[in-house]
Amino acid sequence: MPVSARERMKALVFDGTALAERLVPRPRPRRGEALIKVRCAGICSTDIEILRGYMSFRGIPGHEFVGTVVSSSPRRLAGSRVVGEINLSCGSCPLCRAGLGTHCTTRSVLGIQGRNGAFAEYLALPVKNLHIVPPSLSDEEAAFTELVAAACEIPAQVDFRRSHSVYVLGDGRLAAMVAQVVRLKTKKVAVLGIDRDKLERIAAVGIETRDLKRRHGKLDRRDFVIDCTGSPEGLPLAAELVRPRGTIILKSTYQGTLEWNPAPIAVNEITVMGSRCGPFDTALDLLERRKIEVLPFLSAVYPLGSWEAAFRRARAADAFKVLIRIA
Amino acid sequence: MPVSARERMKALVFDGTALAERLVPRPRPRRGEALIKVRCAGICSTDIEILRGYMSFRGIPGHEFVGTVVSSSPRRLAGSRVVGEINLSCGSCPLCRAGLGTHCTTRSVLGIQGRNGAFAEYLALPVKNLHIVPPSLSDEEAAFTELVAAACEIPAQVDFRRSHSVYVLGDGRLAAMVAQVVRLKTKKVAVLGIDRDKLERIAAVGIETRDLKRRHGKLDRRDFVIDCTGSPEGLPLAAELVRPRGTIILKSTYQGTLEWNPAPIAVNEITVMGSRCGPFDTALDLLERRKIEVLPFLSAVYPLGSWEAAFRRARAADAFKVLIRIA
Repeated sequence: MPVSARERMKALVFDGTALAERLVPRPRPRRGEALIKVRCAGICSTDIEILRGYMSFRGIPGHEFVGTVVSSSPRRLAGSRVVGEINLSCGSCPLCRAGLGTHCTTRSVLGIQGRNGAFAEYLALPVKNLHIVPPSLSDEEAAFTELVAAACEIPAQVDFRRSHSVYVLGDGRLAAMVAQVVRLKTKKVAVLGIDRDKLERIAAVGIETRDLKRRHGKLDRRDFVIDCTGSPEGLPLAAELVRPRGTIILKSTYQGTLEWNPAPIAVNEITVMGSRCGPFDTALDLLERRKIEVLPFLSAVYPLGSWEAAFRRARAADAFKVLIRIA
Repeated sequence: MPVSARERMKALVFDGTALAERLVPRPRPRRGEALIKVRCAGICSTDIEILRGYMSFRGIPGHEFVGTVVSSSPRRLAGSRVVGEINLSCGSCPLCRAGLGTHCTTRSVLGIQGRNGAFAEYLALPVKNLHIVPPSLSDEEAAFTELVAAACEIPAQVDFRRSHSVYVLGDGRLAAMVAQVVRLKTKKVAVLGIDRDKLERIAAVGIETRDLKRRHGKLDRRDFVIDCTGSPEGLPLAAELVRPRGTIILKSTYQGTLEWNPAPIAVNEITVMGSRCGPFDTALDLLERRKIEVLPFLSAVYPLGSWEAAFRRARAADAFKVLIRIA
């Protein structure tokens, strides 16, 4: 069946080698899905890793978005401004039935695995994945929802006490969100990074920071170390900085390998806990109640036509979040 | 002060390059320590790793032993047959005060770190580290105490339910102990290994085994995977075999590095829990009540003079526990 011109859309497509802007068919929502006109989409480190080969993804990347529902079944959502959870689970396997839909083994993941994503004029997602954005939040703020939710996964996995001490490794956008979320639970939180400007901007929202390049003396060992470096250096450093019987939260995913002897994990009886996507409702609630500051971590907004500049900016060492404005 | 001939003893000494039998001064017990005449000592994988450079240890290795107390303060222990916990903690640092003496940052470890060990006619250990061996246990059985205690650390860290499913990776002596200890807590336990003869001997004590070399079809994913391989292959394999949100127990320590992308830990939100030394009282209790079979896993006993043959045997792919009989 030929696709009419009206049903085409602009999108960024990754063919395994390079990203390019192309005219492709609009997605056709399946039963239970909504068609969403993308307002803006965020560039995540995962997108940058995908362009380096991570997940062997082919298609339209992008999984952080704010959009307007064009059509949906039920129709009541039409016209709503929404953000969306990125895991498309089957709903019927043992993991889904156990409430672990984000771990469904046959899942697809928006813009990451088997499903076209948000760097496009339109995307389709199941209605059950959507969350309406409170009117008090701008598009730019709401575009941080997926990132804040990923940070909120940590207190959903771990029972923090006020007395716990925490390091957040990394000075990027995720580290900035994680530190703010964890600070709501426990008082002693410090971000350890290497980029002075980014550390200053994190410090400006009231988070303690330390510059690892200017490390004087010995850092104390902490109850929790959260690796948000997105690099193979994160885990070995975390193992040095966590106390015996302490916990490392592993947020980093990246293309490439880590070369390391994990003996400290066994010898010091450290727990390493992997952590991925988190609860959107908690994130939207924190954003609406202004418990988390996100706009200080918005580095730039580019129109879709300037996507190359947007990705260059997102890759820059001093960049926090870069958004692409699509509509 | 010259040391008289009477105060010398035979010992195996590692100089960083090779192990050699030498005549060295007997240890002088410090305050609170006992002098112990070693009856027999077990060769552990850690000893073999130490001879490859692990922990940069120099001195007398060996940490699994049964001995007779020669002198102690208080004197009541003199003449007793004992086994001993291997961590020598300061007793006063925050970790020690929190009951985590095995993680004392200034600790020494018998035959592993800063303290001469058990491949010698005599050793010294704090009296508080010693446990009297029940008369019903032979020296050979009691020499397994440290290994069984290491296995008992796992149920001390993790709340197993009867319904939990477990893989034990590795077909060595530790795997054989771990599988037996875990089976007391949960019913679905299988040992995955590669040596047919060793798997048969593990199966002979009633443990389900699978030969990874003959792997047909797909292995189901389990709630817990316990890495007892002692090799860098263990952790990546464990990450493949554990269910999303499941737990890996890391027992393996080795010289050398692991080259790996730990993304599955983050993506599948897996918990990796390091596990080391365990409770001697629990181990001795299980041994005395015959809840754990150890003698099927005794491969050979050599006199001290045949230590080279003993180490050769312990390194052989088909060997379980090899003991050195010293007195």
